[in-house]
Amino acid sequence: MKPGVDISAECEFSGTDGARVQETQGKLLDDLTASKLARTFKALSDPTRVRILSALSQRELCVHELAASLEMSQSAISHQLHTLRDMRLVRFRKEGRHVYYALDDEHIEVLFQCGLDHVEHE
Amino acid sequence: MKPGVDISAECEFSGTDGARVQETQGKLLDDLTASKLARTFKALSDPTRVRILSALSQRELCVHELAASLEMSQSAISHQLHTLRDMRLVRFRKEGRHVYYALDDEHIEVLFQCGLDHVEHE
Repeated sequence: MKPGVDISAECEFSGTDGARVQETQGKLLDDLTASKLARTFKALSDPTRVRILSALSQRELCVHELAASLEMSQSAISHQLHTLRDMRLVRFRKEGRHVYYALDDEHIEVLFQCGLDHVEHE
Repeated sequence: MKPGVDISAECEFSGTDGARVQETQGKLLDDLTASKLARTFKALSDPTRVRILSALSQRELCVHELAASLEMSQSAISHQLHTLRDMRLVRFRKEGRHVYYALDDEHIEVLFQCGLDHVEHE
């Protein structure tokens, strides 16, 4: 056993069951969808963006309320909201002089909550 | 309006409703949890790791079956599995000469499926 090599991660026997592999390949995500999904998760891989989603999982909020809640500047919050909007993780509506942000749809709420349950379940 | 500035992202009126902000802050994720959650999403932000989860969402698989399904080397797959194990996104069990991998728990299945529903819902 080579030092630093985790043998538990590899099989000693490398013969493959062709039918199982073929079936798995048939249902595997294609490259384009896998890249899109990876980009969505990447948009969620920043602590500030996670905290913005945490705030929006409570209620819709104005940019200036988000900025005050996270104790950050409006422009810093706007920058992160831009990334979240690009990946359709949040949506906004204008009402008079205000711009309200919310989680895009119920998928995002579940996505956020599932991730949170996972990290809190230790 | 300055060119290149998306005014839709900022509120013109920056007065804050103290009670709403205070309530939001009270339920906001703390820094440590937000960082953990961001790291979990970061582990999911790679197309190969997404495809591994896609394969494991069908059934548990040996490392060599994963390698054959994704048409990659066992060592490349093992490397990605290591990251996924670190974040408790997959678990493994040994059976004789084989090492079987599976999604860690039902949270991960829902997390993966919700993300997928989101990118396919365009």
